[in-house]
Amino acid sequence: MTITPPALSVFEALESEVRSYCRGWPAVFDRAQGSHMFDEDGHTYLDFFAGAGSLNYGHNNPVLKRALIDYIERDGVTHGLDMSTTAKRAFLESFQNNILRPRDLPYKVMFPGPTGTNAVEAALKLARKVKGRESIVSFTNAFHGMSLGSLAVTGNAFKRAGAGIPLVHGTPMPFDNYFDGTVPDFLWFERLLEDQGSGLNQPAAVIVETVQGEGGINVARPEWLRALAELCERQDMLLIVDDIQMGCGRTGAFFSFEEAGITPDIVTVSKSISGYGMPMSLALFKPELDIWEPGEHNGTFRGNNPAFVTAAATLDTYWADSQMEKQTLARGEQVEQALRAICEEQSGTHFRGRGLVWGLEFEDKPRASAVCKRAFELGLLVETSGPESEVVKLLPALTISPDDLDEGLRTLARAVRETA
Amino acid sequence: MTITPPALSVFEALESEVRSYCRGWPAVFDRAQGSHMFDEDGHTYLDFFAGAGSLNYGHNNPVLKRALIDYIERDGVTHGLDMSTTAKRAFLESFQNNILRPRDLPYKVMFPGPTGTNAVEAALKLARKVKGRESIVSFTNAFHGMSLGSLAVTGNAFKRAGAGIPLVHGTPMPFDNYFDGTVPDFLWFERLLEDQGSGLNQPAAVIVETVQGEGGINVARPEWLRALAELCERQDMLLIVDDIQMGCGRTGAFFSFEEAGITPDIVTVSKSISGYGMPMSLALFKPELDIWEPGEHNGTFRGNNPAFVTAAATLDTYWADSQMEKQTLARGEQVEQALRAICEEQSGTHFRGRGLVWGLEFEDKPRASAVCKRAFELGLLVETSGPESEVVKLLPALTISPDDLDEGLRTLARAVRETA
Amino acid sequence: MTITPPALSVFEALESEVRSYCRGWPAVFDRAQGSHMFDEDGHTYLDFFAGAGSLNYGHNNPVLKRALIDYIERDGVTHGLDMSTTAKRAFLESFQNNILRPRDLPYKVMFPGPTGTNAVEAALKLARKVKGRESIVSFTNAFHGMSLGSLAVTGNAFKRAGAGIPLVHGTPMPFDNYFDGTVPDFLWFERLLEDQGSGLNQPAAVIVETVQGEGGINVARPEWLRALAELCERQDMLLIVDDIQMGCGRTGAFFSFEEAGITPDIVTVSKSISGYGMPMSLALFKPELDIWEPGEHNGTFRGNNPAFVTAAATLDTYWADSQMEKQTLARGEQVEQALRAICEEQSGTHFRGRGLVWGLEFEDKPRASAVCKRAFELGLLVETSGPESEVVKLLPALTISPDDLDEGLRTLARAVRETA
Amino acid sequence: MTITPPALSVFEALESEVRSYCRGWPAVFDRAQGSHMFDEDGHTYLDFFAGAGSLNYGHNNPVLKRALIDYIERDGVTHGLDMSTTAKRAFLESFQNNILRPRDLPYKVMFPGPTGTNAVEAALKLARKVKGRESIVSFTNAFHGMSLGSLAVTGNAFKRAGAGIPLVHGTPMPFDNYFDGTVPDFLWFERLLEDQGSGLNQPAAVIVETVQGEGGINVARPEWLRALAELCERQDMLLIVDDIQMGCGRTGAFFSFEEAGITPDIVTVSKSISGYGMPMSLALFKPELDIWEPGEHNGTFRGNNPAFVTAAATLDTYWADSQMEKQTLARGEQVEQALRAICEEQSGTHFRGRGLVWGLEFEDKPRASAVCKRAFELGLLVETSGPESEVVKLLPALTISPDDLDEGLRTLARAVRETA
Repeated sequence: MTITPPALSVFEALESEVRSYCRGWPAVFDRAQGSHMFDEDGHTYLDFFAGAGSLNYGHNNPVLKRALIDYIERDGVTHGLDMSTTAKRAFLESFQNNILRPRDLPYKVMFPGPTGTNAVEAALKLARKVKGRESIVSFTNAFHGMSLGSLAVTGNAFKRAGAGIPLVHGTPMPFDNYFDGTVPDFLWFERLLEDQGSGLNQPAAVIVETVQGEGGINVARPEWLRALAELCERQDMLLIVDDIQMGCGRTGAFFSFEEAGITPDIVTVSKSISGYGMPMSLALFKPELDIWEPGEHNGTFRGNNPAFVTAAATLDTYWADSQMEKQTLARGEQVEQALRAICEEQSGTHFRGRGLVWGLEFEDKPRASAVCKRAFELGLLVETSGPESEVVKLLPALTISPDDLDEGLRTLARAVRETA
Repeated sequence: MTITPPALSVFEALESEVRSYCRGWPAVFDRAQGSHMFDEDGHTYLDFFAGAGSLNYGHNNPVLKRALIDYIERDGVTHGLDMSTTAKRAFLESFQNNILRPRDLPYKVMFPGPTGTNAVEAALKLARKVKGRESIVSFTNAFHGMSLGSLAVTGNAFKRAGAGIPLVHGTPMPFDNYFDGTVPDFLWFERLLEDQGSGLNQPAAVIVETVQGEGGINVARPEWLRALAELCERQDMLLIVDDIQMGCGRTGAFFSFEEAGITPDIVTVSKSISGYGMPMSLALFKPELDIWEPGEHNGTFRGNNPAFVTAAATLDTYWADSQMEKQTLARGEQVEQALRAICEEQSGTHFRGRGLVWGLEFEDKPRASAVCKRAFELGLLVETSGPESEVVKLLPALTISPDDLDEGLRTLARAVRETA
Repeated sequence: MTITPPALSVFEALESEVRSYCRGWPAVFDRAQGSHMFDEDGHTYLDFFAGAGSLNYGHNNPVLKRALIDYIERDGVTHGLDMSTTAKRAFLESFQNNILRPRDLPYKVMFPGPTGTNAVEAALKLARKVKGRESIVSFTNAFHGMSLGSLAVTGNAFKRAGAGIPLVHGTPMPFDNYFDGTVPDFLWFERLLEDQGSGLNQPAAVIVETVQGEGGINVARPEWLRALAELCERQDMLLIVDDIQMGCGRTGAFFSFEEAGITPDIVTVSKSISGYGMPMSLALFKPELDIWEPGEHNGTFRGNNPAFVTAAATLDTYWADSQMEKQTLARGEQVEQALRAICEEQSGTHFRGRGLVWGLEFEDKPRASAVCKRAFELGLLVETSGPESEVVKLLPALTISPDDLDEGLRTLARAVRETA
Repeated sequence: MTITPPALSVFEALESEVRSYCRGWPAVFDRAQGSHMFDEDGHTYLDFFAGAGSLNYGHNNPVLKRALIDYIERDGVTHGLDMSTTAKRAFLESFQNNILRPRDLPYKVMFPGPTGTNAVEAALKLARKVKGRESIVSFTNAFHGMSLGSLAVTGNAFKRAGAGIPLVHGTPMPFDNYFDGTVPDFLWFERLLEDQGSGLNQPAAVIVETVQGEGGINVARPEWLRALAELCERQDMLLIVDDIQMGCGRTGAFFSFEEAGITPDIVTVSKSISGYGMPMSLALFKPELDIWEPGEHNGTFRGNNPAFVTAAATLDTYWADSQMEKQTLARGEQVEQALRAICEEQSGTHFRGRGLVWGLEFEDKPRASAVCKRAFELGLLVETSGPESEVVKLLPALTISPDDLDEGLRTLARAVRETA
């Protein structure tokens, strides 16, 4: 496939320099279906990025599309603030029946605003309010969002510098395997907590991703997560799992922490929760933490009712049984085999992942970007992650067919070979 | 109309205590059209709240609805991160042609995430980055959002307390008419800036609403806004107008600051920008401020393409000429007359407003809530604002018919009378 | 008198560029007695600066000198941490008998470290601990010290910039007469406190100087101080009077706030408390505020016992009756007459003061420095204050003779004339 | 010796509850000479605390006493702000000749105020100003002072809680041997610095004590200090050695970092610098860092001239040759032998130290306090340190005689035995 640089004039003339993805993918996209995107020049792209994890069920999933159009056609409430609506009720009931009850999870549900960072901000506020402390512990290479509360617990130095103020009240701790297994887990963290002279402000909470997506596809082991949960309980800290990118089935189970058998105190959910790529997020927390006053946190777009409609349809369609989870794990094995083959062939490469989130790391760091560039030319959308963009990140839709998955993996292998 | 309390069980059982509007309006809403909402029990409500200003063109506006369904039907890109898309291009071109160019506004456009607070966070980050200073001046009774950056420049003590950390880097100054005209404008602010011993950290920027919606419908005079703009220029501070609630025609002109003839350095827009109540926001700024590095600020839902579609349709439909502006001002006069009549009849009441945003203040503060409660029973949705919820806030859709407007105003007058 | 620039080599070569007074007074001082200093070249200087208010009883006061040498000779404890010593007991008893009891002041006494800023830091810590809030209100042109806690409530922009971090948790309010009487006292402050939407973090305390020394000899009226004390009580804020420069008799009475008839919750005392110019400070507070845990605040030089000895001797000598207060007020009248004469003669000059602290302000601001320079050449030590160094500050020793005072005032008048 | 509880009434009645040492040592001290203190009831105490390291040359050292009395008798300037004085010149020359020049140290000298925390505040300000960054790295169990800047880099949780605000801009790293040698030095610190995704704000400086006195007599190895210095250089961070307690010969050499062969960028000196226990401190820094503006940092008691006199006499008397250093090391060996014997006899005890600073740690933590209590009854002044007061700290005067040292060590051994 040959790509002719499209006429980007209005984007370049009018849109801020802050835009980024459009630079690596210089096409003007028009339509999308399932795992494919189509640009205005007629090119087709196989999407292994899935809206950074927001499109776990593919683009414009037909089941959800039908529910969405029906809702719009019949003039269902679109914008509902935090009013009670039939669409919200249907979502809550579906969430309770398909997700919470089968997993025996006791959570209250908060609609903190439609984006992930809204949910993280709400989670941090609530943790601080409950514990009466300011400090939050996050992990190396964490990513939690761009508003000031979330950014303060995000690792990336480049993003942090954008804050324009010193980011405080957060302390990073080493994520799982940060020292390649040479240092016992939580050695540093627990010692600081127990030492009355350590200088660490006693944290209200710990916020963690079970798999760090932006941070480079760093996978926490279940035993590490369990030890973290125990540490939090022992040391009177709340455990917040930010499941915005890894939840909604990305790792197999609906919540990424299920495998570890832990019950976080607070969970943030967003990205794929609407199923259709529409802005929506949730903060879930144990009922005893629900000490919010009415209206103490608010926001205009908390009640994105079309998103509730597709979210409920998603849960009813894909999460009434364990089919989706099994399929994701099967697809994951397919990816793992392909990555193993690539790494055996190409020295200086490593892979890691879980479910349908995988990373291919290059010791020669700039090569990861070269691979993505070449993949784009070959019609495959993949992006890098990691602190130095050294990891190619694979996030195909969970609904991808085995054939499409295979095709994408072969394109990836080719891009790797051609950048050697 | 008699309201039977609906079965709210799943809301009460599962949803967090933080929910608020649903408490004052104990109905389960199902459908909505134009200025009317319909609950599941068949009751109809005339909506004078318009999604807190997010539904300037009414609920499920048919023109926009058609464009939206067409887009969804044809599998237009739904979730696009910050990729270039045909929908984004159409929006940018429409925004340039209908809004920026006719007003000779030089702005670059940033999609900072789909909510108002995302836009405010981006605006504050950029101002701090440009000026290399942390401090921001806001105004008494300002409301800018719930994430930590925005909350620090928000006045409401109850909302601020939810932060769980001390909110710093912001200093409040008196909004227009804070002392009922007894103190010269900016006396305190300018003196602090000029006095090298004042203790005020030199601000990077000033953030202001031209009409404070949440703060109690406090209307800044054009001459006050002009003096503020001049002060900012003289003192090397950026002027940020938060036009999230008052922009998109709410006060008549597309931007609420047009009347004053000023050109802010940065403008935040959200709420009614999509026209259909879908999450979308913009940060606009002068091109010389566009010093963002690619990706320095990001976010999952920056590319809510269905919102771009309805936004473009909105602009093409309502903002290609000055019809909407004239109509809004005419409707505003209708409101003003009705409020004048109420205030003449009822002592202890005052009114103020501009365009189609009006406030009816009660010296007996709790009465404002009583009026809203009674209005709801009478089928009218209105809410309070102000630091002590002492102001009934009128935000009808700009597209409301004169008859509906008249009906609502009569219901309001009745509710006021019945709570006397 | 002709001044030959002394050999400053080791000072210039070795001492940091931060040094300042030595630049305006380019002499190497060797000895000092009463109101006179003597440099190594045999020149004599009449001292109207008195160690920035640390030498209220003159240099090397013979009564105190005798007590000090006796103590040293007999090997009295010099360095005592916070151990109980006979010297500390003698001081505490003298302070109780001569100062607290006659004034019916209920204070507990804390030795927070030997400098003024130690006392301010302790006062702020205690206020925050008692009230459980972070925010402190200070006043325009306040000066409270150079460590980070004190600097955050200090007004001078140049000093603040030295912090290297954003100074937060403090908000400035207008000092008395900041608007030349055109705005009611506390209009802004009280309105912010009462308005739940003002955006002001509820303060733990207010810190104030009754006369701002560094800020330009701004004198608060007794009625303003009383209104402030009432405001603090009404609004549940502690009132801290920083009496470091204005206490110890500088304004007449021992405490500068006595004239106003108020009883602050916390008082900081330093500078002239030892009487001999040795480092010593006190934090005084109402007994119900004494919630410190043992050792919660500490410091190496809290027990400067030679200073306790001279402090006790000072109190016994000068504060057993009202003689000193009367004399100071009489000397103050002498200064006032002289300043009135200068201002009548020289247009563009203004004077203000109380007791023996006076300021001579020049509308042509750089002239104040020129006056000090000329005065130095004429053998008189005076310094400027105010945000733009526009005020010549007169702080003669309280023990100065009428003749010396007269001589100095005549020298000042000459310096003013010669810089016209 | 039997101790009769003294009449503490005025202390209890008037002095704040914050006092601490006087609680463990319930005597009223009157006189002191060399290594002995005498209470008003005629009891004699052997002092192994030496004013927390402020009395390295003993109480009221006769050589210094003579110089001090001569200076006072001849009316030498007592209080000199930052004026040039003959006493300051003599000190600067002596410091240059006896200390800086022989060690080839290039430092500029700043008088930041008379206490250790003044020096630390000035050092942190300067580092932040030079590097344009806010963040400072300190170490576990560090102690740097009680004002807010210093407290933020101090480890002790109890002292930190006294701040009343969240302490930010500091991050603790593990001090030498924090993990008993099981983790490579600086593994965590360097990894955070090198990882662009770590979340660590890039530090302006690192502040370290070579031996942590308050922290429990934790001794950094020379190779650890060298590696730290190299890390600082490699990573563009300033190295601040806080030598307030360990400088002035406490570890043998004048500066405690000499043994490691490093040259810190900034050094803080206080406590024993005056030699006589009078408040005085220094900040030393490389000349290229001397970017202070005149007066950017100031303070009333920067010119404590009597302290300059005794400081110069101390340097001339004790630091013109290497005699004092050799003697300290010899006395240190005497202490080490005695502690070894105690630890061999008593299980659950450990010792560590360097020069004349030693710690005796008890696994049964409360026993350390019991030992101090018993020692006091036996006429020996020793105090605990460490985060849980589990270490008995030995800080005898450097000038102690071998016999007095032996007597004190035997008393200590007895106290240990009697608390077994």
